[in-house]
Amino acid sequence: MTTDRLAAQIDFILEIDRLKLILRQNCLVTDRSHRENSAEHSWHLAVMAILLAEYADEPVDVTRVMKMLLIHDIVEVDAGDTFIYDEAGHADKEERERAAADRLFGMLPEDQGTELRALWDEFEASETADARFANALDRLQPVLLNTATEGERWRAKGVVAEQVLERNSRIGRSSQRLWELVRGRIERAVELGHLPRRHG
Amino acid sequence: MTTDRLAAQIDFILEIDRLKLILRQNCLVTDRSHRENSAEHSWHLAVMAILLAEYADEPVDVTRVMKMLLIHDIVEVDAGDTFIYDEAGHADKEERERAAADRLFGMLPEDQGTELRALWDEFEASETADARFANALDRLQPVLLNTATEGERWRAKGVVAEQVLERNSRIGRSSQRLWELVRGRIERAVELGHLPRRHG
Repeated sequence: MTTDRLAAQIDFILEIDRLKLILRQNCLVTDRSHRENSAEHSWHLAVMAILLAEYADEPVDVTRVMKMLLIHDIVEVDAGDTFIYDEAGHADKEERERAAADRLFGMLPEDQGTELRALWDEFEASETADARFANALDRLQPVLLNTATEGERWRAKGVVAEQVLERNSRIGRSSQRLWELVRGRIERAVELGHLPRRHG
Repeated sequence: MTTDRLAAQIDFILEIDRLKLILRQNCLVTDRSHRENSAEHSWHLAVMAILLAEYADEPVDVTRVMKMLLIHDIVEVDAGDTFIYDEAGHADKEERERAAADRLFGMLPEDQGTELRALWDEFEASETADARFANALDRLQPVLLNTATEGERWRAKGVVAEQVLERNSRIGRSSQRLWELVRGRIERAVELGHLPRRHG
């Protein structure tokens, strides 16, 4: 049984290697020709959880937040990345991602598949303090990268300030301090001409 | 003070974005034209820590192992990646990486810089059960990728089976079960002609 169990775990580990090929919309800070992929994005978020947990307005369990962030995008191996400002793509996102979660977490031994699936469901529902904080970091990080690269990818995709403020306001549900930071960076991007207003 | 503290944390978060551009020697399972970078490698290892901790011969603290793995390669932002089979590169690796650790962890607020630096030192020394297990995963993962891609990158770099066995035997210092798995995969790669012996 140990052998079957380990074999299933290794199969899953090799399967999620594909997350390194799922490209997101934002680019890297020091090389704008590289778009970020979902695996390195997940790494970045997990490090941020260690450093920024102190700003959560309610106490969070950093270990659970890290685990959530490490696995939150794994469904994209099947479902692909859906750009946050893509309204059409969001129509069937939930269904596609749920089917992906069934298949991928279903590859694992039952105890581990159940644990990771529950963490993913919790992240998606974004109702607990841990999940709200994990979601806040998932919003904060692209704003950091986009503002550090003069809004290049926002402008390439025709995104406007009102959308960015609306989509990121949920950061304030977890951390007033981080939402204040994000709002400040968005306002500065508008002033610098890196992010247009809808009716500029 | 909060503002300065948060500003230092954000500077560090943006600085380590560069780890996504540090290429390792192995390629990805489903796209051999892509070499893996150190950020996505770190993500993969942290997920593996969650799944494989049960095979450590001594009990390990999964949270500490995850943190170690998330930050173990950050020094490469300054020092670059040193290929495990590159003897010359290893001559001054320790010095280059120590200077990088001074600068990078030194960017953080003192309490956090000290915590992460201590975890990095512990990983490098590889003497505690947590650090030995983290190091075992750091060896196991490239063997999984290389054997899943018919040893393509091993052959491209002229690596032989004796080197792979010697470099990876330290996995057995943490987990007999994972070392057995690795030895089996290496032997199979030799049988299949994916990894030559020194005097084949």
